[in-house]
Amino acid sequence: MLRKNRLFTPGPTPLLPAAQTAMASFTAHHRTADFRALFQRVLADMKEFIGTQNDVLVLACSGTGVMEAAVSNLTSPGDKVLVLTAGKFGERWTALAKAFGCKVEVLAAAYGETFSLDDIHLKLTPDVRAVFVQATESSTGARHDVQGIAKVVRTRGDDTLLVVDAITGLGTTYFDLDGWGVDVIIGGSQKALMIPPGLAYCAVSERAWQRMETTTSPRFYFDLRKERKSAAKGESAYTPATSLFAALGAALEFVRGMGQGDLAKGREVLVNNAELCAEMTRAGAQALGLKLFASSPAAALTAICSPNGIDSGKIVKEFRDSFDAVVANGQGEMKGQLFRIAHIGYYDYLDTIGILGALEHVLARSTGKAVEYGAAVRAAQEVYARLPHKRQLVGA
Amino acid sequence: MLRKNRLFTPGPTPLLPAAQTAMASFTAHHRTADFRALFQRVLADMKEFIGTQNDVLVLACSGTGVMEAAVSNLTSPGDKVLVLTAGKFGERWTALAKAFGCKVEVLAAAYGETFSLDDIHLKLTPDVRAVFVQATESSTGARHDVQGIAKVVRTRGDDTLLVVDAITGLGTTYFDLDGWGVDVIIGGSQKALMIPPGLAYCAVSERAWQRMETTTSPRFYFDLRKERKSAAKGESAYTPATSLFAALGAALEFVRGMGQGDLAKGREVLVNNAELCAEMTRAGAQALGLKLFASSPAAALTAICSPNGIDSGKIVKEFRDSFDAVVANGQGEMKGQLFRIAHIGYYDYLDTIGILGALEHVLARSTGKAVEYGAAVRAAQEVYARLPHKRQLVGA
Repeated sequence: MLRKNRLFTPGPTPLLPAAQTAMASFTAHHRTADFRALFQRVLADMKEFIGTQNDVLVLACSGTGVMEAAVSNLTSPGDKVLVLTAGKFGERWTALAKAFGCKVEVLAAAYGETFSLDDIHLKLTPDVRAVFVQATESSTGARHDVQGIAKVVRTRGDDTLLVVDAITGLGTTYFDLDGWGVDVIIGGSQKALMIPPGLAYCAVSERAWQRMETTTSPRFYFDLRKERKSAAKGESAYTPATSLFAALGAALEFVRGMGQGDLAKGREVLVNNAELCAEMTRAGAQALGLKLFASSPAAALTAICSPNGIDSGKIVKEFRDSFDAVVANGQGEMKGQLFRIAHIGYYDYLDTIGILGALEHVLARSTGKAVEYGAAVRAAQEVYARLPHKRQLVGA
Repeated sequence: MLRKNRLFTPGPTPLLPAAQTAMASFTAHHRTADFRALFQRVLADMKEFIGTQNDVLVLACSGTGVMEAAVSNLTSPGDKVLVLTAGKFGERWTALAKAFGCKVEVLAAAYGETFSLDDIHLKLTPDVRAVFVQATESSTGARHDVQGIAKVVRTRGDDTLLVVDAITGLGTTYFDLDGWGVDVIIGGSQKALMIPPGLAYCAVSERAWQRMETTTSPRFYFDLRKERKSAAKGESAYTPATSLFAALGAALEFVRGMGQGDLAKGREVLVNNAELCAEMTRAGAQALGLKLFASSPAAALTAICSPNGIDSGKIVKEFRDSFDAVVANGQGEMKGQLFRIAHIGYYDYLDTIGILGALEHVLARSTGKAVEYGAAVRAAQEVYARLPHKRQLVGA
């Protein structure tokens, strides 16, 4: 049987055809009026997409690049910072902060779990200059309570900044960033915005800009103040990834179209879509007797425990070999124990039902046990059928 | 929920991404060495794809254009021809032959049915100059017995030509054209070859070329002898649809890849794939208590009777509104009575399971009756699971 290569990974995600076309045909030089117009339009649209009044910058790097920018711009060597970690991406905050000489206080939750707000409160001594956390921990599929964390951090006034890695969270999670008082939020192009890797972005609060007046950690390519100054003149400080900007422009138009001309509404559609795909997938997995890995599962992806001591690598391989469907294995210590199916961005009903149908064969073959065909699919269909028709059709 | 636009129509069919890219980037002028090389390679590959030693021509027109070419090149006004018809495309043969002044003898089977070879034998008087038929009647989903028909026609020796419209049949049906003695077989680009409409092709036997020496029906754009002469010099007689040639070249490479370097094997993979998608779809529809329209169903598409007097237009509309999935209504008198799901070309397991999952919701909503979710999907999964693993993986 023919097998189409399909990504069900938490980034990169399936590409939006209109973005592919835009990217393929874009040739303008970056120091021209044409590109400046695109650049300015994208930055303005990105504020709407992220849902913030703060400045948004888009850089030519991966998400980790902007994570580094947050650390290097907002801290000085010796600063005390608090990292909330419950997975591989939380650990990346720790590694980054240490690389820039911060004194790192860690609040760790077990893989698959999230933090108690009381514990955060206790760790948040007055000398903590910044708190780093993920919105959704892609390595475990857990959702962290950004609103609750922001509430705790804001009790410290302007002395403590809150930095949220929402690389898989943006476009899959509801945020009121300015209302909650998040200082820096970070996203990446190869996620809910449905374009290839190569761009990462952040929104930066006035409080965070103030902080940069005095911080001394070394930075050059990721100097956010330099980039902001340049962006105010309608250009990037260094050579921008032009074709990806063209793709991003097209993706933002698509999202606006989903919101019937309203980009913020389009983002809500995208978030609801991820929530629904995730809910269908969770119902499907559970109908097959599989356990979810995360106690507070994110809409970005569903991490499913490998059954009965079977190496999840076998399941990942079987998805690939039989269906050319790429799902993700666990990372680090979780490798072999779980597999992850993503819902970030460009997925619909047929994709979701298709991958659950495939999961049933994969499971039968990997475990050698009979599987009741249609069981996962039916559970997902029931989730879908219970929705009001209007919500089924959002994004027309 | 997000809805991706997907075609499940018996042409146009889903586009092959590699063909889209090739088409988008192709700019060469058609009277250049570059284009001539592509043109010649495509014609040679098309012989392998069709599975014939006969000359293949590719013209800038729709499939109907080459149907007309077959009539205008192979008949003279007043010639007696036999049309075998069991649907809208059979009726097109009749209309075409009449337009060119043939004396048309018709053997009609009821919509959804096929012909008895004995009846054909009876109709095949020695004065019949040509027999026209479809390999698969796309309007009803029926498969005709080309091998059996060829056997009957060949009892007439070289006096009677057999012309087969295989526009939806090529790449979905097994043929041994030269072995069976088919004189002209006709195909179109927007079908199993996974590219847009705009090209149609035919393979022409020596017997048919001989016939053209004496036939007098008017033809100019569709003059096959002129085109053959030009093709022998590596060019088309009139301006070719260059970007579609580039797409066709890429599609043929894809098919060759599926056959691990062997184009004929790749075509077999494509045929097997359509057979499997069709078998899964038939099992799924029947599990929901739906009736198939065709008594000898083709692999190209599955025509499903609308249940309980429900207008099939409602079902087609529901597929579109709820899932942005485009399935076909019945044509002509069959409009409102059946809907058609195609399997021609670029479909895989996830597509097939996805559309069957969608069918369950569509049916529930159209009939207002409860549907057992997962029933169609399960039946299709059981078809898939029964296959030897090797056949599941063909086309890797």
